[in-house]
Amino acid sequence: MSNFTYGITMGDPAGIGPEIILKAIKNQKIQGLGQHMVIGDAGVLEHLNEKFGLALEIKRVKGVQELADKEERVNVLDLANLDMEKLAPGKVQVQAGKAAVEYLKKAVILALGGEIDAVVTTPLNKKAIHQAGFKYPGHTEILAELTGTEDFAMLLSSDKLNVIHVTTHISLQDSCSVINKKRVETVINLADKTLKMMGLNKPKIAVAGLNPHAGENGLFGKQEMKAIGPAVNSAKNQGINVDGPIPPDTVFVKALEGRYDIVVAMYHDQGHIPFKLLAFDKGVNITAGLPIIRTSVDHGTAFDLAWQGIAKETSLVEAVKLAGEMSLNK
Amino acid sequence: MSNFTYGITMGDPAGIGPEIILKAIKNQKIQGLGQHMVIGDAGVLEHLNEKFGLALEIKRVKGVQELADKEERVNVLDLANLDMEKLAPGKVQVQAGKAAVEYLKKAVILALGGEIDAVVTTPLNKKAIHQAGFKYPGHTEILAELTGTEDFAMLLSSDKLNVIHVTTHISLQDSCSVINKKRVETVINLADKTLKMMGLNKPKIAVAGLNPHAGENGLFGKQEMKAIGPAVNSAKNQGINVDGPIPPDTVFVKALEGRYDIVVAMYHDQGHIPFKLLAFDKGVNITAGLPIIRTSVDHGTAFDLAWQGIAKETSLVEAVKLAGEMSLNK
Repeated sequence: MSNFTYGITMGDPAGIGPEIILKAIKNQKIQGLGQHMVIGDAGVLEHLNEKFGLALEIKRVKGVQELADKEERVNVLDLANLDMEKLAPGKVQVQAGKAAVEYLKKAVILALGGEIDAVVTTPLNKKAIHQAGFKYPGHTEILAELTGTEDFAMLLSSDKLNVIHVTTHISLQDSCSVINKKRVETVINLADKTLKMMGLNKPKIAVAGLNPHAGENGLFGKQEMKAIGPAVNSAKNQGINVDGPIPPDTVFVKALEGRYDIVVAMYHDQGHIPFKLLAFDKGVNITAGLPIIRTSVDHGTAFDLAWQGIAKETSLVEAVKLAGEMSLNK
Repeated sequence: MSNFTYGITMGDPAGIGPEIILKAIKNQKIQGLGQHMVIGDAGVLEHLNEKFGLALEIKRVKGVQELADKEERVNVLDLANLDMEKLAPGKVQVQAGKAAVEYLKKAVILALGGEIDAVVTTPLNKKAIHQAGFKYPGHTEILAELTGTEDFAMLLSSDKLNVIHVTTHISLQDSCSVINKKRVETVINLADKTLKMMGLNKPKIAVAGLNPHAGENGLFGKQEMKAIGPAVNSAKNQGINVDGPIPPDTVFVKALEGRYDIVVAMYHDQGHIPFKLLAFDKGVNITAGLPIIRTSVDHGTAFDLAWQGIAKETSLVEAVKLAGEMSLNK
């Protein structure tokens, strides 16, 4: 994978993003996977490098032509957009929210222009970006807008379970209302396409029902009969290896047994509850459907742990690995 | 627990109920826990005893006065309500559905009259009971009606996780609509009371939110602010050790870490998805709120495995143990 060049966004500087980036590089867990370029603020990285005694070289680079996959070296495209004097770790701040969005925007531009093969993101803080004037629910929606993408979905990946979501950051009542055949079919297609990019030849896809017992023949809800079942049949007719709707409380057990490579979940917690139980700090978040490869850690800014030297880089390392794998199969 | 006397209903005779009863007794896993009385059909038990070469003594008893906790002996209150000639294993049948309800009714009468301390149930088949004219979604609703109980809830128990449900066998959309402060508060109280019966002195209760991120301050739904939060506060004021609403995708991780003894789930799959992942064949189903103690296996009739000698008795053994524990603390 030595030809793999990727950007890592620094996320909210007041969160654990900068620390896990330094740790992932220090512990050489992402060494040899390709050339990284952190898109962030060199000042914060230098400060934490010193604070934690990591003795890394923080190297400011102007672009990908200056990258080298050298041990103990952190390549940074320094946007120099922070007032370090005023930056407070673990706090919601306008300047931090603004900076985080700027890192992301820059990374997307580089990826769309083909300068980097993938974008790996560390967490931003929703309140901070809102205070900075960016009214998005999260990363995914910003990425969709920046890349002009209409059909996308949040996919969580780990060695135990992959899950992709038909709906995410809306109320459960709204999830029940908006589920329709077209969207379910779109997400089945995104699952198939994305798993192929992840290296699976003929992915086996399970589609969960929405209601208890997958609706029990309409007794506990009709979305299975009206939307989910027809979408599964339509995807089957396209040659996709897909089953469903399967009762939500057994589909994850079946996936865990290896009978499916991914579960299509109807709403945020249907996918997140089993995923977080099975892969708490090793999960990777992928935005399926974008024209660029984007993976992310599967945790938040963890303000309560920020700048203390105790955050874990596990999820970031997995996110880099998966981005590399997807880049090979694109 | 030698004074503990309990009934085991045979469930649908065409399912795995009769087999797991024989196995639990044969393997002596419920020996010493008290005196059992199977409420079912002696003919079926005799047939399977012979078929599987178990060499158990099938002893017809007229009532609890004839019970003995003797190894290799199956005490049966024989309702003799089956035509064995016509009974087919693994099939939905009117006579089997009717018989299963009769076993349950008899068990409830014995428990209400104080002749037995608890009812342990094996599975019935919903289609079979419907065909026999009993239009219930399942065991729980029959038990509630037979005992005149209004406030009850389905509690699933295992050594890894306990979960109790605010709503169960209705559509997800209906679950979102019917959740209100009174019901949530009732279920918190049932959790507290039932865990005390299970031997916990001061149970720590977590209440899950309904929506993603527990509603994110109303952005993704308002049930947390309108119903769940107020119910938690009200229960706290009664002296109950309870937290919430907690985001649904982290509350089960916290419970698994031992920070809570039980999770109050808002809908069927919110509780069932994590429970089945963590305790697939060791779960016990308890109806909280009944005037009698009732535990049950946490699986169905498994018609595809019926009468083949391959069904597992694990869940039944756990259900008997838990009924005994609850009987001590009642």
